[in-house]
Amino acid sequence: MQKTKVDKIIINGFVLTMNDNKDVFRTGAIVIQDNLIVAVGDQDKILQEYIGDFFDAEQKIVMPGFVNTHTHLPMSIFRGIANDITLFEWLNDYIFPMEKNLVNKESVKIGAMLSMAELIRSGITCFNDMYYFQDITAQAAIEAGIRGIVAEGLIDDAVANSSTVEQGFEYAEFLLNKYKNNDLIDVAVASHAPYSCSDRNMQKAKQLAQKYNANYHLHLSETKWEFDKFMKEYKQTPVQYVDNLGLLDEKTIAAHCVWLTDKDIEIIANKRVGVAHNPECNMKISSGVAPIPKLLQRNAKVGLGTDGAASNNNQNMIQELHTMALLHKLDTMNPTVLDAYQAVNIATNGGAKVLGLDRKIGSLEAGKFADIIFIDFSFVNALPSYNPYSTIVYALLGNEVSDVIINGKFVMKNNNILTFDEQYAKQQVIDYQKVIRRYFNNKKIK
Amino acid sequence: MQKTKVDKIIINGFVLTMNDNKDVFRTGAIVIQDNLIVAVGDQDKILQEYIGDFFDAEQKIVMPGFVNTHTHLPMSIFRGIANDITLFEWLNDYIFPMEKNLVNKESVKIGAMLSMAELIRSGITCFNDMYYFQDITAQAAIEAGIRGIVAEGLIDDAVANSSTVEQGFEYAEFLLNKYKNNDLIDVAVASHAPYSCSDRNMQKAKQLAQKYNANYHLHLSETKWEFDKFMKEYKQTPVQYVDNLGLLDEKTIAAHCVWLTDKDIEIIANKRVGVAHNPECNMKISSGVAPIPKLLQRNAKVGLGTDGAASNNNQNMIQELHTMALLHKLDTMNPTVLDAYQAVNIATNGGAKVLGLDRKIGSLEAGKFADIIFIDFSFVNALPSYNPYSTIVYALLGNEVSDVIINGKFVMKNNNILTFDEQYAKQQVIDYQKVIRRYFNNKKIK
Repeated sequence: MQKTKVDKIIINGFVLTMNDNKDVFRTGAIVIQDNLIVAVGDQDKILQEYIGDFFDAEQKIVMPGFVNTHTHLPMSIFRGIANDITLFEWLNDYIFPMEKNLVNKESVKIGAMLSMAELIRSGITCFNDMYYFQDITAQAAIEAGIRGIVAEGLIDDAVANSSTVEQGFEYAEFLLNKYKNNDLIDVAVASHAPYSCSDRNMQKAKQLAQKYNANYHLHLSETKWEFDKFMKEYKQTPVQYVDNLGLLDEKTIAAHCVWLTDKDIEIIANKRVGVAHNPECNMKISSGVAPIPKLLQRNAKVGLGTDGAASNNNQNMIQELHTMALLHKLDTMNPTVLDAYQAVNIATNGGAKVLGLDRKIGSLEAGKFADIIFIDFSFVNALPSYNPYSTIVYALLGNEVSDVIINGKFVMKNNNILTFDEQYAKQQVIDYQKVIRRYFNNKKIK
Repeated sequence: MQKTKVDKIIINGFVLTMNDNKDVFRTGAIVIQDNLIVAVGDQDKILQEYIGDFFDAEQKIVMPGFVNTHTHLPMSIFRGIANDITLFEWLNDYIFPMEKNLVNKESVKIGAMLSMAELIRSGITCFNDMYYFQDITAQAAIEAGIRGIVAEGLIDDAVANSSTVEQGFEYAEFLLNKYKNNDLIDVAVASHAPYSCSDRNMQKAKQLAQKYNANYHLHLSETKWEFDKFMKEYKQTPVQYVDNLGLLDEKTIAAHCVWLTDKDIEIIANKRVGVAHNPECNMKISSGVAPIPKLLQRNAKVGLGTDGAASNNNQNMIQELHTMALLHKLDTMNPTVLDAYQAVNIATNGGAKVLGLDRKIGSLEAGKFADIIFIDFSFVNALPSYNPYSTIVYALLGNEVSDVIINGKFVMKNNNILTFDEQYAKQQVIDYQKVIRRYFNNKKIK
């Protein structure tokens, strides 16, 4: 039999496909042609059919990359700048003033490149980002070879570089056109939150998204303050308020969704809204616990997000997975809730569904993009391993991803990032600290 | 001026002393003679006074090692064997039968050595352990060069190797005598828990501890089941029950303490009982949240523990710190609770106090043992860093400890464990998986 010649064959991996059958191949192989997966299966079978360049996974876990459904990549320059304070102090005393005064194309580039390294190192192969100057973030992602969705954050009192919200809308449309046919980058439209955007601007943003068949991304019902404000002022929950504005449908991604009534859960499930769950950020600023098990019961779309490094303070999906699984066992007082497989599934397939990319990413299956990670289980904290899902969720620390393939290309190999100079990216951030310290004028940073 | 000649001088570190003044030296030095710290301070000053072998900390964070106040080191061979189930299924269907049938000197040695590597890699320089065949664990710790307290776990239906509880008491006294004057090892006496030990055996264990002026270690008020059982059967909380037996004083270490009334908190604080807080284990098996902020308000002694790798599923103090800080902000809905400094303090000084070793370890001060770790802040997730405590608690993953000194000796240098063959320890665990799989007879491991 003539073998089919292909670009790459990953061999000798312990393959978790994360497909609907939950197929696992103890000694599996994955066939890649261009940017697509051609076949996944037992190595012996695969090698009878295909020939190509072999890449030895050395018995590492081989699985689909993680999908980070909510972050603010350029904010990594503000990592750790203010902790142990309320969301409002954090926003009003630190983040908003810094964004008005410090955020520009240069700072966005520096922060985005640092985040690209952090994402790749934690096995994130696709992100969903909301921030400013997102053309820069998109270019950083392309340079890093990482898949992502960028959205310019629209907010009435537009903050970045003191631009107006009208300029933000123009910029958003410019992005939608510029990245129409990009392999790696999609563009969404983002309203910051219902408490920081007028009804008119939220509707205008949703309409812009609809015009381009793009996702619409917003923060929704994150804090009790927000929930109480809407109940008091409008006698409606934040979810029902934005639903009445026509903002909720299967192209909407709502980050946080911590404060939900049963009716809110119904709306989110029925309208197929994507929920981006950010457990660590919600814990750190005492927002509360999103009712993820209830959302899953109603078959709602749920993905995992790290949120930005300024609030979390890192963008590591393995650490976030771990926290998510523990948190919901505690919150429901039921240790069987959110089992290890389900947690990994939320961080891969779940995220892909939230972003509307589930036909393209989220599992290792023929026809999907080759977005693949290798995880090294030889670390002392990963031994012994009886169930790979439980090892990932409960035993790993988050530094064990060794190799990352995105869109068919290695972006990290044996812990070395191949697509850009990580050392330079780190040095830029260290140098930029002087600018931030000068801005704070030696005021103590919490 | 004649300089004093000493063994080692750690230079060029960003030193967090964790002393009562919270002294930090941006370019600090630490002077070590034999197993003790002789001086800590600004490098310039130190170098005027001392001369000796220099060890360059390369601008890493240099701080006291973490104190793990509650674990079961040899259980790491059972890591990940049963997850997403209740504590009772876990104990009765997995752990207790395995302990009866599989735990012996060989398995304890294999598990203990794996744990020694895990502890050192996460910067733990002192542990407090409860398990079986603890002479083996003590020997493993001495081989690894790590400080620790071992206690034979006494339980009425004594499980390990089907020995009797009487044999357990004899063994406990043998340990107390054997390690009377050991540099690294102290011995405590442990009762498993008030629901698994008779009053008589708990009192006998406490008396044995008192005879040797040793710590007394037990699991206490971990689950709602335990709390309800004591309320129903004895109309007393578990804390008040064991207090009435005379078990609680400043030499008692109570692990978990999740279910506490205000009166229990008073008792624990007033009697100076040490609380070993294990947040991840408590979340994973849905035990609940220990009221740590309330205990701290009452000035109770609180330390951090990882619990055993079979329930957590790792023994990493940085990950545990992180979870602890987030958990209590959520539980109290107050983001200012358990700030970063306080979290690090609990994991160092707090643990030292719980173990009664605060005059010897827990901070970097002249006269204390030289138990010192270096943390590498050059990882992408640790940049930028404005406040070292917040970087440790919120941004690190747990793999960033690069060097560990215990009792004046390097046990890990540049990520290489120097005291034993880590690769061999890992291979032993991998080989032992066959024994465990055979025991389970191919029954699916959850």
